Amino acid sequence: MRHIIDLCDLTEKEFSDLYKLVSNIIDRPEGYVDACRGKVLGSLFYEPSTRTNLSFSTAMMRLGGSVVGFSDPNATSASKGETLKDTINMVSSYADMIVMRNPREGAAKVASMYSSVPVINAGDGGHLHPTQTLADMITILRMRGSADDMKIGLCGDLKYGRTVHSLLHFLQRYHNVQFYLIAPDALKLPDYMVKFLKDNNMPFCEVDSIDEVLPELDVLYMTRIQRERFVTAEEYTNLEGNYQLTAEKMKRAKKDMLVLHPLPRVDEIAQDVDDDPRAVYFRQARFGMFGRMALLLTLSKLPFERAGHHEIGADPGIRCSNHKCITRSELYVPLHGKVGDRCPYCDAALEMQL
Amino acid sequence: MRHIIDLCDLTEKEFSDLYKLVSNIIDRPEGYVDACRGKVLGSLFYEPSTRTNLSFSTAMMRLGGSVVGFSDPNATSASKGETLKDTINMVSSYADMIVMRNPREGAAKVASMYSSVPVINAGDGGHLHPTQTLADMITILRMRGSADDMKIGLCGDLKYGRTVHSLLHFLQRYHNVQFYLIAPDALKLPDYMVKFLKDNNMPFCEVDSIDEVLPELDVLYMTRIQRERFVTAEEYTNLEGNYQLTAEKMKRAKKDMLVLHPLPRVDEIAQDVDDDPRAVYFRQARFGMFGRMALLLTLSKLPFERAGHHEIGADPGIRCSNHKCITRSELYVPLHGKVGDRCPYCDAALEMQL
Amino acid sequence: MRHIIDLCDLTEKEFSDLYKLVSNIIDRPEGYVDACRGKVLGSLFYEPSTRTNLSFSTAMMRLGGSVVGFSDPNATSASKGETLKDTINMVSSYADMIVMRNPREGAAKVASMYSSVPVINAGDGGHLHPTQTLADMITILRMRGSADDMKIGLCGDLKYGRTVHSLLHFLQRYHNVQFYLIAPDALKLPDYMVKFLKDNNMPFCEVDSIDEVLPELDVLYMTRIQRERFVTAEEYTNLEGNYQLTAEKMKRAKKDMLVLHPLPRVDEIAQDVDDDPRAVYFRQARFGMFGRMALLLTLSKLPFERAGHHEIGADPGIRCSNHKCITRSELYVPLHGKVGDRCPYCDAALEMQL
Repeated sequence: MRHIIDLCDLTEKEFSDLYKLVSNIIDRPEGYVDACRGKVLGSLFYEPSTRTNLSFSTAMMRLGGSVVGFSDPNATSASKGETLKDTINMVSSYADMIVMRNPREGAAKVASMYSSVPVINAGDGGHLHPTQTLADMITILRMRGSADDMKIGLCGDLKYGRTVHSLLHFLQRYHNVQFYLIAPDALKLPDYMVKFLKDNNMPFCEVDSIDEVLPELDVLYMTRIQRERFVTAEEYTNLEGNYQLTAEKMKRAKKDMLVLHPLPRVDEIAQDVDDDPRAVYFRQARFGMFGRMALLLTLSKLPFERAGHHEIGADPGIRCSNHKCITRSELYVPLHGKVGDRCPYCDAALEMQL
Repeated sequence: MRHIIDLCDLTEKEFSDLYKLVSNIIDRPEGYVDACRGKVLGSLFYEPSTRTNLSFSTAMMRLGGSVVGFSDPNATSASKGETLKDTINMVSSYADMIVMRNPREGAAKVASMYSSVPVINAGDGGHLHPTQTLADMITILRMRGSADDMKIGLCGDLKYGRTVHSLLHFLQRYHNVQFYLIAPDALKLPDYMVKFLKDNNMPFCEVDSIDEVLPELDVLYMTRIQRERFVTAEEYTNLEGNYQLTAEKMKRAKKDMLVLHPLPRVDEIAQDVDDDPRAVYFRQARFGMFGRMALLLTLSKLPFERAGHHEIGADPGIRCSNHKCITRSELYVPLHGKVGDRCPYCDAALEMQL
Repeated sequence: MRHIIDLCDLTEKEFSDLYKLVSNIIDRPEGYVDACRGKVLGSLFYEPSTRTNLSFSTAMMRLGGSVVGFSDPNATSASKGETLKDTINMVSSYADMIVMRNPREGAAKVASMYSSVPVINAGDGGHLHPTQTLADMITILRMRGSADDMKIGLCGDLKYGRTVHSLLHFLQRYHNVQFYLIAPDALKLPDYMVKFLKDNNMPFCEVDSIDEVLPELDVLYMTRIQRERFVTAEEYTNLEGNYQLTAEKMKRAKKDMLVLHPLPRVDEIAQDVDDDPRAVYFRQARFGMFGRMALLLTLSKLPFERAGHHEIGADPGIRCSNHKCITRSELYVPLHGKVGDRCPYCDAALEMQL
């Protein structure tokens, strides 16, 4: 592994080595105070994300390394019309590793093509966010010992919830996992994800309130429902209760059930749940930081390799159908294939160039 | 001491130990280059404050530690509707200490309730700013040897001047200090502060120009008068001269008088005063940095302690009368008592919840 | 050398020592990991400049030092009406060195007058940008072995291009250098620079397209042409081709010609040139970082010296004719001379104060 675009890029071996390292760091953090001494992380946040940004920066600093970069899109040369290619070329000539958050889908893949140093995807639009999935997995493995043989409920916005899709993709690796998809009709898991579950024989059922399944669950993965997703305020208010966790409801859950949440939460988890030992979402954030330490440490050992040659531009007549795709704004990015093929950057379908 | 919300929270013993440490750092800074190696400070500035922000960051770095955080309210998860409780929970799961500046009064106290690591108040609205008072005290103690037996003039905006109120509170600990309150009627010391001076037998007199008392003073503490405070521009222009310090006026002052100012200054101290050896306001800023080093070093030795349980919400019928109070925006914060009691967060009176 | 306002301030000896140090750092970076341990750089960017900002920060961190400061003008105390003098006074009481980018011409010189620590000019408006010239020179010296005996083409906006003017000033030190000035009439080298070339017997000829001279060149220094500089869009489109470099054109250039560019580039250099080994503009950025490491390391050894006294204000009847000059906004800055004299800060002519 050289770049981390999607957590599923890691082989089972690579992931288990990574998890071993994470465990070591959690158990003996003092042993890593100088592990990245003299190394510099380039942190490029094209959209604000305090949480992810702080987590990566702290991780690098706890390894004795330093961080440079920006957290504000307006402060970037991009605003001077610079291409992503040039920015990455510049930063990878300064820094030893790059972490990038970018609103355009597929941006991380493109950055990795032009970087002389390892690139970590800290979120490319609604596409992928591998280190969130890493935080989720570490929490489950660390608190349960294993991700096999469990009943996991995924609650909230399953339609747009990027973290839920990534987690489902990764859990495909584990055995005897049953999925409870808890969402209102308007926010049900999209067809292509349902197809993914079926194709991989991952047993699931769809329900429309937490209460129905709460007593069954070993893990409850909560996500935020954004009011904007609903047609009317009433519609929201009517449904809200079904997807909200409270201390009262927790009484019916297993004694050792885990409640996870990618954070930030708004009111889908009531304040009175926080003091429940089963509520591990804040520890999950801390595990995420340790996971990022392990990633940074692993990648920091890779050599500087001047990025190779890439031919330029798209095949005539072809473009990605996703208007948020990086190939729509960075026109030099090579794009090959025929209508209906998947975009190699954002996974949407290719279409006819008008 | 675990959190620093108000400098008066320190016992005389704690403060004298702190001052000893400050003196040591000033005299042998090289001895502290690695004192906080491997430690991370979370720096949360919900409103910009270059001066305080740079001072804390430099202090941490001079101890060999690192700093993460934000200096721009818009870059915060708070803008996604996250509670202060959750932000603090997150940051205290990453960092070893937290410094927070927040426009809402009482915010520091609330942050300390939900933090697993020490919290330092870098200013909570117009309420408290303990490390400014620390800078003031170090300057007086370092340059005069003692804060006893002195005549101190406090000049400018004594009504809204938070730093003046904090300094008066702290000077109550010293002996034979006489106070000259130099302010226009519109900006006189508020009644509750006058009461504080009387209750503690702190001798004072109120005058309305520097010139009247300048020759008497051992210390002159200048503050900025904001034009906006005045009804009319004329009113301002007429009074301005009385509260402005110039090289000409300095001729009538004692040879060893000290001129302090919390900075930034605008024109209440003329440029031509800067080269006068008695003008110590820039050294005061440097002393402030050393004071912050001592605080950070002391707190960095405290262990991580997961924040305890706090019941939720206010007593029925009660709220804080200060609309800038943190309890007005963070509704889960526990608030008990009856009408007229002091708010435990911002010290304003509790009132009937309408 | 104590402050770096203009690269030409360095004597030949100082520059060659600096270049020796740069070479050493490039060849053995690991030897400098602790060279600035415990030192703090104050980084004051009054206008955003990702590139320069990242380069200086990375340079300081690679030396084991730390960086504090701001990259956003709005986050500064200046917005509270603080003078540059006071800000510099404050920062130099915290940091060991200061790097400043400021839109006002002459600001760096003024900062150096009031700083107790070394100041490096990271660009003062359209005036000077010494570390860019340093990056250019290191690239030429490192890739060619010498800056003597070469034919250098300077292409693009030679009228407003600050980097071109600085480079010409510095190249005056070298022997047998021939200059080809490649620009449209609207953007030709200004008269005072042409005069400079003539006064110093620096042979040059002016041409209006790359193609005419490309085969002759040992070095081609490209710069951006800003559309706004042209009266009409057509005018721009007509001329664009003459000042644009493509892989096709590169076929006619010498096998060992170097292509430099201060970056960011827009479309004056086509993407298909990037993979050409003669295109060294990204390595130039990396050389710039190493140059900044050498500068910071050299200056970090200078002692803290409290800034001396400066009398205040301008001679009656006199002011600088450049409305972007720092003396126009910072009125306390001493300014002496008579009409027609050069401004000691921005080099424009002094005029009658109206």
